[in-house]
Amino acid sequence: MATAEQKYRVAYFKQKVDHFSFSNRDSFRQRYLIYEDHWNKNGGPIFFCTGSEMNVEVLANQMGIMYDWAVDFKAMLVFAEHRYYGDSLPYRERSFSSRERRGYLTTEQALADFAYLIQHIKKHAPGADKSMVVTFGGGYGGMLAAWMRVRYPHLVKGAYASSAPIAYYSGEVACDKFPRAITDSYKSQSQNCAASIRRSWAIMDKMAATDDGLKFLTEAFHSCQRLTTDSLPHLYQWLKEAYQTMAMLDYPYDTELFGKLPAHPEACRFLWNPLQTGEDLVRSLHKAASILYNSSGNAACYSIDGNIGVHAGWLFQTCTELVMPECTNGAEDMFKPKKWDVRKHAKRCQQRFGVTPDPGRLKPVPLKTRRNNLRDPWYYGGVLSGPESTTSIVVRNAAHLLDLRKPNDLDPVSVAWARTRAKGTLWRWLTPKLNFFG
Amino acid sequence: MATAEQKYRVAYFKQKVDHFSFSNRDSFRQRYLIYEDHWNKNGGPIFFCTGSEMNVEVLANQMGIMYDWAVDFKAMLVFAEHRYYGDSLPYRERSFSSRERRGYLTTEQALADFAYLIQHIKKHAPGADKSMVVTFGGGYGGMLAAWMRVRYPHLVKGAYASSAPIAYYSGEVACDKFPRAITDSYKSQSQNCAASIRRSWAIMDKMAATDDGLKFLTEAFHSCQRLTTDSLPHLYQWLKEAYQTMAMLDYPYDTELFGKLPAHPEACRFLWNPLQTGEDLVRSLHKAASILYNSSGNAACYSIDGNIGVHAGWLFQTCTELVMPECTNGAEDMFKPKKWDVRKHAKRCQQRFGVTPDPGRLKPVPLKTRRNNLRDPWYYGGVLSGPESTTSIVVRNAAHLLDLRKPNDLDPVSVAWARTRAKGTLWRWLTPKLNFFG
Repeated sequence: MATAEQKYRVAYFKQKVDHFSFSNRDSFRQRYLIYEDHWNKNGGPIFFCTGSEMNVEVLANQMGIMYDWAVDFKAMLVFAEHRYYGDSLPYRERSFSSRERRGYLTTEQALADFAYLIQHIKKHAPGADKSMVVTFGGGYGGMLAAWMRVRYPHLVKGAYASSAPIAYYSGEVACDKFPRAITDSYKSQSQNCAASIRRSWAIMDKMAATDDGLKFLTEAFHSCQRLTTDSLPHLYQWLKEAYQTMAMLDYPYDTELFGKLPAHPEACRFLWNPLQTGEDLVRSLHKAASILYNSSGNAACYSIDGNIGVHAGWLFQTCTELVMPECTNGAEDMFKPKKWDVRKHAKRCQQRFGVTPDPGRLKPVPLKTRRNNLRDPWYYGGVLSGPESTTSIVVRNAAHLLDLRKPNDLDPVSVAWARTRAKGTLWRWLTPKLNFFG
Repeated sequence: MATAEQKYRVAYFKQKVDHFSFSNRDSFRQRYLIYEDHWNKNGGPIFFCTGSEMNVEVLANQMGIMYDWAVDFKAMLVFAEHRYYGDSLPYRERSFSSRERRGYLTTEQALADFAYLIQHIKKHAPGADKSMVVTFGGGYGGMLAAWMRVRYPHLVKGAYASSAPIAYYSGEVACDKFPRAITDSYKSQSQNCAASIRRSWAIMDKMAATDDGLKFLTEAFHSCQRLTTDSLPHLYQWLKEAYQTMAMLDYPYDTELFGKLPAHPEACRFLWNPLQTGEDLVRSLHKAASILYNSSGNAACYSIDGNIGVHAGWLFQTCTELVMPECTNGAEDMFKPKKWDVRKHAKRCQQRFGVTPDPGRLKPVPLKTRRNNLRDPWYYGGVLSGPESTTSIVVRNAAHLLDLRKPNDLDPVSVAWARTRAKGTLWRWLTPKLNFFG
């Protein structure tokens, strides 16, 4: 939802498809958004949002804190779209049509895009040569924001990385952590709620063994296609995705991210009763998922066909550098037991993209691991330690990326406090000569 | 000249041709030399020589200091060959046959090779996981050694970069510095010597205007081919190369680098007399160049045909990332006046390799500029400032890379002292808990 103040300008910058060889000489147009209303051309900083796995216009709407701080810091805002997403497709509609073309979707190439764009802006925007740059990002974008500081310290003075689950992708976190974190989020609302979800899988398995059961499931979930034994995994994935997303995006007010999402999407309000019959429980699961999938109330039926709207680019990245092992056992977590099978994953990636996952590909320095945002299942992947100048803020009561959004009266106090600390840190970085804050 | 102690083992490591995309899946064998005679497997460091623009076996013979220090530090030595040189050709004999194949000769790819090789050794050599790594390199190899520390600080504890002319290639040094530094080297032997060389160009130009003159030049320089107006630039290049190399490699004892080179190759002993006739001067130039080109005394004639033995890989690198502007005016320097013509250079690179020079390609952080080794024409390109932990040593009396060679009684005191300081710095890096040296 673009607000009145967000009058950014859309611009494009010519990038090399391959920054690291002279073999491929193709180039493409990277989209970026630029907002200068409050910028002090005589030394005001540049807040640079490192694009993540989405359209940059959608992303910019989630970064309200940058607009908020632009006023105080007299900052220029730049939102750079990540290559292979949104309108920044190196080979337009054919970007994913061959391994040669999609193969340039890597984190190092994306970081180099950002570095070149920063150089370009500092060179060509009058006054920007004196401006210090701070990167901003959340989630995968937060990883990139932090890596920009590691890779290009001469261009980037500091990074504000929110909920950047670097450790999830570096193999330092056990595969059961993420599902357990989601389960904990549901348990914290109601022990019975997590238990209901846990027992639902066997119930649905049993139903799926008969034609009548499959018919019931099809109707209960309002599936557009008739559910079959083959499509059962798609149903389970669809449900899991809903539980996961609602745990992540537990915002205190209505949002529009991937469609509308109401404030505090509490699946548990349908799932607290341990005495529900199997059929009632299934109907309750549908209601719970509908909070996410049908907040408008207009969906006639759901396409539960395995295509849950994950971008091809992201699927490719999880098949190359960003492998996040995940396993469930149905005991410590509320999900159907499933081992992490690295070979199966590799086989699927080979079939789909012609690549073998290579999570050890060179990325900027792996940092030491700790966790951070406590109300966000991504927190085990967070990083709390770093060089001396690193400030780590643990937000006890914040959903995924909440701190990056525009301040709101409904925000928990912990988030308001985290923003204040982050802002103070930024002041210190940007005014090194006034470093009397300690 | 391999000495008895240099009983290294030759090994190969499988590298990706392209570390930064998933488009090219080719791999090749990188050669490296490994020497473990003195290595303490329980924590002894790894001294890792970052290969430069030459065969790694030739390189290893110039790095005698590493063997010397291996004893005291109980270090493992590794000499890694740079991709596209020696026996580390990604596409064997076809490595330079198309832009697609040669295009992967970039500094970032070479640094990534070294990083993967370090990871491999630390993982597979029993005990090496505890070993700290220090990179060593000279000239271009010194640039790579320093960049390894910048790019991969989690793998590389420190770098010993000798005469690493980073600033020459980053556009920070004026184009006349290198020729002036060479001139200064000759002036320091005799003002008349530099003056003789300076006046020789016009004399040769005049000779080349007549057939008799060309015949005289052909005979005086013992050229295998008859010199013509067209080949005159080759003759001048051949002479300039000789002056330059002798200024760089002014070692106090005989060496074998690119053929034999006698101690203190003093071209000036033939060129001090300002009263020589033009013909005598030309004959003296031949004698001077012969110090370098015919130290064995066996050459019947010289091939002065423009092929002065520069490796195709190095030519490619000077046409892509490592552009070093050079200009002469015949006044402050002793060379034939020649402007730096960036467009002409670009045109030649386009014709020869199908590439346009791109010296602004992303390389690791550019450091601030100062000069260092004072008896080495590369010194204006050296870097003396850096992060706090940087130790910069200016060696007043050392030729190019002399400090990296095995200690010799004939070394100037300044070099012995520089080695002692460098060694002390290494001790500090490698024993951080005993950091009482300051």
